[in-house]
Amino acid sequence: MNQDYIKPNEWSVLEEGFDAQRVKSSESLFSIGNGAMGQRANFEEQYTGSTFQGSYIAGVYYPDKTRVGWWKNGYPEYFAKVLNAPNWIGINVLINEEVLDLHTCKEVSEFKRELNMKEGWLSRSFKAVLQNGIKIKVDTKRFLSLELDEIGAINYNVTPLNSDAEITYIPYIDAEITNEDSNWDDQFWDILEVIQNNQQSFIKARTMKTHFYTCTFMESRLFINDKEIVTSVKNKQSPKTISSIHKQEVQKNKTFTIHKFGGYVVDRNHAKDELVAAAKLILDKAVNFGFNALLEIQKKSWAQIWNMSDITIEGDVKAQQGIRFNIFQLNQTYLGTDASLNIGPKGFTGEKYGGSTYWDTEAYCIPFYMATKDQSVARTLLVYRYNHLDKAIENAEKLGFKNGAALFPMVTMNGEECHNEWEITFEEIHRNGAIAFAIFNYNRFTNDYAYIPEKGLEVLIGIARFWQQRATFSSDKNKFMILGVTGPNEYENNINNNWYTNYIAKWCIEYALENIAIVKTDYTADYKRIKEKVNFSEDELKDWKKVADKMYFPFSEKHRVFLQQDGFLDKELITAANLDTSQRPINQKWSWDRILRSPYIKQADTLQGFYMFEDHFSIEELERHFNFYEPFTVHESSLSPCVHSIQAAKLNRMEQAYEFYLRTSRIDLDDYNHEVEEGLHTTSMAGTWMSIVEGFGGMRVLNNTLSFSPKIPKQWKSYSFKVNFRNQVVTVNVNHNEAHFKLDGAPKITILINGKFTDIFQHKLATV
Amino acid sequence: MNQDYIKPNEWSVLEEGFDAQRVKSSESLFSIGNGAMGQRANFEEQYTGSTFQGSYIAGVYYPDKTRVGWWKNGYPEYFAKVLNAPNWIGINVLINEEVLDLHTCKEVSEFKRELNMKEGWLSRSFKAVLQNGIKIKVDTKRFLSLELDEIGAINYNVTPLNSDAEITYIPYIDAEITNEDSNWDDQFWDILEVIQNNQQSFIKARTMKTHFYTCTFMESRLFINDKEIVTSVKNKQSPKTISSIHKQEVQKNKTFTIHKFGGYVVDRNHAKDELVAAAKLILDKAVNFGFNALLEIQKKSWAQIWNMSDITIEGDVKAQQGIRFNIFQLNQTYLGTDASLNIGPKGFTGEKYGGSTYWDTEAYCIPFYMATKDQSVARTLLVYRYNHLDKAIENAEKLGFKNGAALFPMVTMNGEECHNEWEITFEEIHRNGAIAFAIFNYNRFTNDYAYIPEKGLEVLIGIARFWQQRATFSSDKNKFMILGVTGPNEYENNINNNWYTNYIAKWCIEYALENIAIVKTDYTADYKRIKEKVNFSEDELKDWKKVADKMYFPFSEKHRVFLQQDGFLDKELITAANLDTSQRPINQKWSWDRILRSPYIKQADTLQGFYMFEDHFSIEELERHFNFYEPFTVHESSLSPCVHSIQAAKLNRMEQAYEFYLRTSRIDLDDYNHEVEEGLHTTSMAGTWMSIVEGFGGMRVLNNTLSFSPKIPKQWKSYSFKVNFRNQVVTVNVNHNEAHFKLDGAPKITILINGKFTDIFQHKLATV
Repeated sequence: MNQDYIKPNEWSVLEEGFDAQRVKSSESLFSIGNGAMGQRANFEEQYTGSTFQGSYIAGVYYPDKTRVGWWKNGYPEYFAKVLNAPNWIGINVLINEEVLDLHTCKEVSEFKRELNMKEGWLSRSFKAVLQNGIKIKVDTKRFLSLELDEIGAINYNVTPLNSDAEITYIPYIDAEITNEDSNWDDQFWDILEVIQNNQQSFIKARTMKTHFYTCTFMESRLFINDKEIVTSVKNKQSPKTISSIHKQEVQKNKTFTIHKFGGYVVDRNHAKDELVAAAKLILDKAVNFGFNALLEIQKKSWAQIWNMSDITIEGDVKAQQGIRFNIFQLNQTYLGTDASLNIGPKGFTGEKYGGSTYWDTEAYCIPFYMATKDQSVARTLLVYRYNHLDKAIENAEKLGFKNGAALFPMVTMNGEECHNEWEITFEEIHRNGAIAFAIFNYNRFTNDYAYIPEKGLEVLIGIARFWQQRATFSSDKNKFMILGVTGPNEYENNINNNWYTNYIAKWCIEYALENIAIVKTDYTADYKRIKEKVNFSEDELKDWKKVADKMYFPFSEKHRVFLQQDGFLDKELITAANLDTSQRPINQKWSWDRILRSPYIKQADTLQGFYMFEDHFSIEELERHFNFYEPFTVHESSLSPCVHSIQAAKLNRMEQAYEFYLRTSRIDLDDYNHEVEEGLHTTSMAGTWMSIVEGFGGMRVLNNTLSFSPKIPKQWKSYSFKVNFRNQVVTVNVNHNEAHFKLDGAPKITILINGKFTDIFQHKLATV
Repeated sequence: MNQDYIKPNEWSVLEEGFDAQRVKSSESLFSIGNGAMGQRANFEEQYTGSTFQGSYIAGVYYPDKTRVGWWKNGYPEYFAKVLNAPNWIGINVLINEEVLDLHTCKEVSEFKRELNMKEGWLSRSFKAVLQNGIKIKVDTKRFLSLELDEIGAINYNVTPLNSDAEITYIPYIDAEITNEDSNWDDQFWDILEVIQNNQQSFIKARTMKTHFYTCTFMESRLFINDKEIVTSVKNKQSPKTISSIHKQEVQKNKTFTIHKFGGYVVDRNHAKDELVAAAKLILDKAVNFGFNALLEIQKKSWAQIWNMSDITIEGDVKAQQGIRFNIFQLNQTYLGTDASLNIGPKGFTGEKYGGSTYWDTEAYCIPFYMATKDQSVARTLLVYRYNHLDKAIENAEKLGFKNGAALFPMVTMNGEECHNEWEITFEEIHRNGAIAFAIFNYNRFTNDYAYIPEKGLEVLIGIARFWQQRATFSSDKNKFMILGVTGPNEYENNINNNWYTNYIAKWCIEYALENIAIVKTDYTADYKRIKEKVNFSEDELKDWKKVADKMYFPFSEKHRVFLQQDGFLDKELITAANLDTSQRPINQKWSWDRILRSPYIKQADTLQGFYMFEDHFSIEELERHFNFYEPFTVHESSLSPCVHSIQAAKLNRMEQAYEFYLRTSRIDLDDYNHEVEEGLHTTSMAGTWMSIVEGFGGMRVLNNTLSFSPKIPKQWKSYSFKVNFRNQVVTVNVNHNEAHFKLDGAPKITILINGKFTDIFQHKLATV
């Protein structure tokens, strides 16, 4: 039973009716963010029911002491986690001295929540009868500004409906916050200064250990029926909180309004000792604009984003809502302006996975950002890893590798590994492959080869060295093997010769060799610099080649498929369809050993390789592998359905492709895995985008040419999307009869449509 | 560099000279115990240097909240650990009001420590000059009574050497104690009562959560030059401590003595509300005997133990000291009188491994106790597991097994699993095999078949059910496989078809079937009772048989050896001799993935099977497997060398056998692994005994006949040991020319000597 309380709507996420059981789910689903910060949709006013408070600042993390039962050599000392930051959205509301709290009200009615994705704001309205009998109407709206990304604004309105009332607003900043997932109940923040100046309040705080300096701030304005008033204000301070008390007699049916402006400034953007001054400047600016003008700016900012990244779907409101929700959340999380930031699997919507960077970024997110933003954004994501290369080399050294071999971390904030399960940390090494592949993918899409001599090649060399050293020569089979790994399917651990890992390892070495040769010929100065820096010899390259040439790939003659790993055929091969539903998800029902010896696959593994290296295999091979592996796949990772959707579409299995699409696009809205209250599956949202653009639209880049082979699920009337290919924007619109192509940004582009070269001219609709 | 500060001596462990760096090591090595309690050799007087305080009560444990990084379904909620119990040995000593403390004295000389294994006591003597210039001589002796196993006694003497002095003894009980290894710094004890009655003191305390009730107690007597005196006593109490202050002017060269009696009574032996009364009784009894008479009783008790279990070695003092140390520690740890107790890997000498029961008991300890004690002791160890059968079934259910399948825990105090690494907890399932094997082994040695219908068969059935359900049918190979296990070699995890596991699984099923048939025929009442209770059908037994008959065993045609696991030959097969010493022990130097993909074996794995099922294989097969596997074995488990020693002896490789013997017998005295300060390797000590009796002596039971094939290392002149075989005690004495056999307890026994039937008559030495 999945939830279905979210109302279908093309542009908004809507909730109607108040249900205390849904509060934590909705706090995730209605989250807002602007790339620099983000917050769960916690209520502004006090709420004593079950809630998960969270407000996060991009790049501000804490190295929580690692918790582990049984220590193993090489484990990191800490686990970085995104920090719950001081709360600036809070406004306590008193009605005739009674605290407004939806958990304790006599009655709540007409509760509505809207996350307006088109314009980038969150609103809430309800009527409530308090214990003292006063009935009020409340309307709120809030957003985090994209344009001024250090500030957010709240418009909070109370209208007494059945009598006059004394209404008190107490906007506050609270730095007395903790993380839900703290390992040892440590304190994470040192409070440095608590300041009140005129109407402005500031709390300067520093994270412990990591010493990120931040200033959280607020300022408010009051209105009666939209007319600004001055109330009697009383300021209050404690060592970690600050508040202002605005008391006002309000007549029945008149509306008392507070506009609260607040947010964070951080030392990533300002000098440590100028944070309060910076906060003051941004507050002055915001208050000067006022709530309504800021909101207008916000609408424009989002219109720009949608202009490039929107996908429309006609004839299927739920699908439309789903894809927009995904695109919206990705844009709330990461905007690609800062190479020290990345995309956490839950964005700013929860604490799980610590807000850290996983291989999700390279495998799933980069295609989305490449096609819907300026290509500098994808480059910035590559530079993030380049900047961590030294730490990846250190990390590999801890595991016994040498000579500049690099193992990028499975989970990281600053380049250091911060996960500690040996089967993941030490063995899920295929992540190194995705990081190399992203360089290839970026170059394929953008043709920005300059990145490779400039930065990428060093990363490719470190990774190739790792694979060469990690391979084991089996004299028994006269082949190089990769023993003891965890593949993308994390439901197998410490397996030998995971086909995906072996395949990408071989590819990484070959790709590095190929690019060393190109750089040697075409970028001699870079070649000299790199050769001196990383110090490789021709002999070393021969050793790499030996490993690539003699790499072992497990293959079943009987099934004519590559085996996911050496022992796969020894498993009891009962398909997932035969699994009783009471046993699913297996990862919540079964002990780990049982999962490991089962044939069940968490997410695309061999098929992930077929996705990434599609052109290495025939369609018959794809079909055979899809037929063999998909039936064992339980899709218990949010990253699974999208790859399968794309492949099903390629195999012309549109019903199946559509089914997978639905699972990926509404995984959070429909809460498939009963965990949305922990936060959203942000990185997998990029997979949803891929399902449409690469799956249904069939977008590829083939020999420097953009290519499409559009299909459409029978449930839809039409759909459209845009792709920014090398600064040429191609709009694709597909219905059941035809596909239209439109070009912006260049006079002409030659693309492949269903395998045929076709010229598209600017401002001229091409129909196929 | 191993330590060599322990002086060689045939009957004692000796230390000479005070070295603060050695204190924690010596606290382990000089530990004393009596089966009911045990304690590290902490000083009685204050010591502010580095020390690891520990006093433990058999069967009193605490379920510390599990610490784990990443939770997996089926993990136990807690990790049981042996509890550091209230300290009753403490005696603060003041010399002219200055606290005696070896860490702060001006000078310490003539420091000597002796653990007299023959008589079962620990003594210490030294001279010290205090900061106040007073020079004193101190002599102490202490033991834990075997006869009255709730009490210990201390004889503490101070003689001022250079002037008269006021000497104060402050004997105390301190219940303000913690565990070094506490996971969350929780408190483990609730103090219930603190009582002083006349000269007796009591602290009644209860462990938190487990609610074990204990009373710790003490009483003292004072003497000048052996003449009892009455001093002025002042009693003192705090909420968790109790002490008596005895102040005395002592003339130069006169000796002021305190005899302190103390110990624990527990609710395992007494009613909860009678603990103080029980403590009073035992104190009265002990004080009535007095220190010297109690010591005489102690000597007699130990003489009895040695009479049966001593092994003499002529011509090699270190080997003699080593084997006696092992036999002594085993007897200090477990005496086999209570089926709720078992043998922790560190006995009462440290906190590591939580004092819990491992498969060590069945695989290593049972043979020692069977041959050196009344056979009821081994039976009691079997009953321990029988009593845990229901919990083993519950444990298996948590992992998805059904119908009474039993998986005994890897680590336990009360039958519940309390370890939480999936690769151990869920996958090191061969432990189930050792528990079944122990039943076979017990019956083979004692011929007490009655145990099987009475209790053993139910255990065998639960275990057979487990193996049948745990096996996976591979249609690819048309065989049953056991996937995803950890074998005895814990340096491989989640492997498929560990030969040892598959072999013992098949054997368990066949042994269960064999015994069901016997019980059905010969014990019809038991059969009926068991059949009703566990409810098996002929069809079920057929399913078991199918698995046993079609069990898969990985085999290399090339090497003509069974493979440790499916993937063993794919490893880079470089022997341990080629490992740089800087890389060892690998378990302290390498990350876990590197260990896992290496060929290095922690302890006998395939060879463990060859040890247990010796008669299933030819000597040529043994030789081939030994030659293949031993070179990859790093022996980083204390349980490894003994099995290899026995097999080397069987293969007539006496030099190698002797080398392995030395490693096992002095692993703690010489501190091979640099960790003796954490406690002793108690369970592996039984392996040392096996190395001599089964290895050099070649003891076996073949078709109900005791058999020997004596050999002797060239480093020894002769050695002797005794075996209690079915209440007939055979003494074996071996030198380089001949072997002598002597019989007690029966008029005649027919044994096999070097394969020849030989009659041995009581009181008549037989020489071969």
